[in-house]
Amino acid sequence: MSRGMPQSVYTSLLQPDVRLMLAEHDVAGLRELCTALYPGVVADVLDGMPPEQAWEILKHGDPPHQAEILSFFSLPFQMSLVELIDRPSLSRIIEEMSADDRVDLLERMDKDHVEALMPLIAQAERAEIRKLLSYPEDSAGAIMTTEYASLPAEITVQEALDRLRIQAPSRETIYYIYITDEQRHLLGFLSLRKLIQAKPSAKLSSLMARDVISVKVTDDQEDVANEINRYDFLAIPVVDSENRLVGIVTHDDAADVLQEEATEDAHLLGGVQPLEDGYLDTPFFTLAQKRGVWLVILLGAASLTAQVLSWLDSSGGSSWMVLFLPMVLASGGNAGSQSATLVIRALALDETEGHVHWIAWREARIGACLGAVLAILSLLVALWMVGLEESLVVGSTVFLVVTMGTVVGAMLPLGLNRLGLDPAIMSNPMIAALSDMMGVVIYYSAASWMVGSVMT
Amino acid sequence: MSRGMPQSVYTSLLQPDVRLMLAEHDVAGLRELCTALYPGVVADVLDGMPPEQAWEILKHGDPPHQAEILSFFSLPFQMSLVELIDRPSLSRIIEEMSADDRVDLLERMDKDHVEALMPLIAQAERAEIRKLLSYPEDSAGAIMTTEYASLPAEITVQEALDRLRIQAPSRETIYYIYITDEQRHLLGFLSLRKLIQAKPSAKLSSLMARDVISVKVTDDQEDVANEINRYDFLAIPVVDSENRLVGIVTHDDAADVLQEEATEDAHLLGGVQPLEDGYLDTPFFTLAQKRGVWLVILLGAASLTAQVLSWLDSSGGSSWMVLFLPMVLASGGNAGSQSATLVIRALALDETEGHVHWIAWREARIGACLGAVLAILSLLVALWMVGLEESLVVGSTVFLVVTMGTVVGAMLPLGLNRLGLDPAIMSNPMIAALSDMMGVVIYYSAASWMVGSVMT
Repeated sequence: MSRGMPQSVYTSLLQPDVRLMLAEHDVAGLRELCTALYPGVVADVLDGMPPEQAWEILKHGDPPHQAEILSFFSLPFQMSLVELIDRPSLSRIIEEMSADDRVDLLERMDKDHVEALMPLIAQAERAEIRKLLSYPEDSAGAIMTTEYASLPAEITVQEALDRLRIQAPSRETIYYIYITDEQRHLLGFLSLRKLIQAKPSAKLSSLMARDVISVKVTDDQEDVANEINRYDFLAIPVVDSENRLVGIVTHDDAADVLQEEATEDAHLLGGVQPLEDGYLDTPFFTLAQKRGVWLVILLGAASLTAQVLSWLDSSGGSSWMVLFLPMVLASGGNAGSQSATLVIRALALDETEGHVHWIAWREARIGACLGAVLAILSLLVALWMVGLEESLVVGSTVFLVVTMGTVVGAMLPLGLNRLGLDPAIMSNPMIAALSDMMGVVIYYSAASWMVGSVMT
Repeated sequence: MSRGMPQSVYTSLLQPDVRLMLAEHDVAGLRELCTALYPGVVADVLDGMPPEQAWEILKHGDPPHQAEILSFFSLPFQMSLVELIDRPSLSRIIEEMSADDRVDLLERMDKDHVEALMPLIAQAERAEIRKLLSYPEDSAGAIMTTEYASLPAEITVQEALDRLRIQAPSRETIYYIYITDEQRHLLGFLSLRKLIQAKPSAKLSSLMARDVISVKVTDDQEDVANEINRYDFLAIPVVDSENRLVGIVTHDDAADVLQEEATEDAHLLGGVQPLEDGYLDTPFFTLAQKRGVWLVILLGAASLTAQVLSWLDSSGGSSWMVLFLPMVLASGGNAGSQSATLVIRALALDETEGHVHWIAWREARIGACLGAVLAILSLLVALWMVGLEESLVVGSTVFLVVTMGTVVGAMLPLGLNRLGLDPAIMSNPMIAALSDMMGVVIYYSAASWMVGSVMT
């Protein structure tokens, strides 16, 4: 979406005005807000509000502006709005949305809801939607838009400009123009910059570049985004297996893909199954699950290490505590790495603003949940190798180190950020090192309190 | 830099042709290559070659094309070319480069070399360079270009189009037009899309948006990039403290900043001081240093844990080995996390292609170097607490686990990638878990071999 027009002062200045307009039922003011300001700014202003209030304001706009504003919201917020909007209004908004944004939203919505909307949507748009929905996730087809500017080769510059004027309102961009034949085969490329510099009587066929860099509709979205980024393109054409133009991927969607992929990699590297939405938008249970999966796998690996240690140490008279030391320490470090990774990436994406206490409280609760699950599992692992009392020491230590690791892993980056330092210096290894230190203290304290001695 | 024109087929198809042209001294063919193809593609074709050969080809182009091609190279490759190019040619190329790319390069170059070039560069460009060089690193000023399209408010659409035709060749983009007064105060904004749709007789003042979203020249580059990305802009205007337009930051530079910041965060999170250049472009010693710093800090933290353990365990008769177990295991995990992080990010940025063996060999050597340094330090730490023989066990174990951790941390993601799996599932905690398992085996084997028993 290369929308046009930077406009307006900043969000925080507008919010009080908007609340006042709402309170005074200032219909003219609200319409002005929805139609005259840059849609991205309106979205920013409405973003913090409850969905009911946001729609109360948004409904004063017209469908084209409503559609543009909607597409600047996060998908979860779009979803909560969609639940509120009556079907006739919603179908009009969906018609007006750009093809790629629309498909992102419809893919998320309940199937029955989509099917109920479909009959209300114009025939042409409906066919478009069905086609775009059919491309595999993460392919060029899934992120492209079909609203590209295209012209035939044999017309003149003057004719081209006249036709572009007519195409302009419905096209994602008119700055890149693709030259196609009647079967939509991609023949050439021309930028608007080159077009307006050319003689009005020149033929496009004499101006266009013929070897166009394009991608296939089935190409991976990350490769497509890397290509756009490497060559500094505004957009790249997407063709089918017969070199027919089917869409374009624009620079802003490419940048979003690169950001998403970087976030996904960061999460995985920190031992978290990638979140689909932002860190704050992800529900408690989903977040716990995406972290729990890896913590359990990692606990499995650590219990193998405990087993290996018990074989190696069979000759020696070391304390039983040694066997579980790596497992106990790793559990705390892993939980802490997860929190630190999630928080640091959220900080980089500017998501945490004003939510620090909420984050700390949620991390504490997630830590306790994850700690409880891991405690039970590690208790069972320990029971396999040592007695009940010792196993209880292992279990309760795991509970405590996981809970503490989670909280510390989240709070240290937030604290550093507040101090104006780079939160990312709280690296996974650094969190693990701090957690190790807390871990040994907790482990030995628990043992001396519960078993009385560290020797069996 | 929003350069224009997707063109040409793919790199690998071109390389043999280019070698043939060079061998046959095909001057016309080489000139055609440098001037008719899209500069990004030419850069891709030349990128794998030795710098001497690349310049042998590139010198057949004209300065404007040479400048464009040069700016698509990585900075280290630009630097190695700059060493080869004679001063008169180089000064012409630098004049033609876009203002932001030029400053990136000059900032990297030897100060004396820059001062020797300056007198050869045209007066206007020289003043421009000095001004841009004066902005703080990582500020909007440091990434902006001064080649924006601007027009006065009182002219008509027809006049505006005529003036844009003249401005076009020297502007980074003409798709966003900034309306300024005679003192360059930013008054409004207009997109070319809106301009060509308007009546030729309309005044710009009646069309332009007045509340322009802009950034300050001192704003942080990451904030600027996030702003462009959030609002899907092609460019954002940069103003000084008196709201005078001083430059623009374009979408492609914003995308680069976001990628760089994501890479920096990923490196830090993996416990590596961020690299300035790509993973492959970073020299051996620099890479070892950027990793070594954090490994030593983390070893310091781990030796505190050993100290804590020795206090807690003073009552028990545990083996001396327990004291250093967390330190030994952490060293391997940390080194492995670093390698995995570097390799996974390099894979995401498409940097590793065809260099797998070279990477494995370099990681092995870096692992051995880092292992040696950490071995000596951990030997000293151990000597403080236990005897020489035991300390030698600790030192040699650290050497082995760090070397192995480094190699395994690099090779597992590369292997997964080759199998078509996501390399990022080799997360930092996962590498640490695998390294723990290898670590205990190495530790106990070393002890039984060198000390004969794990008890003292």
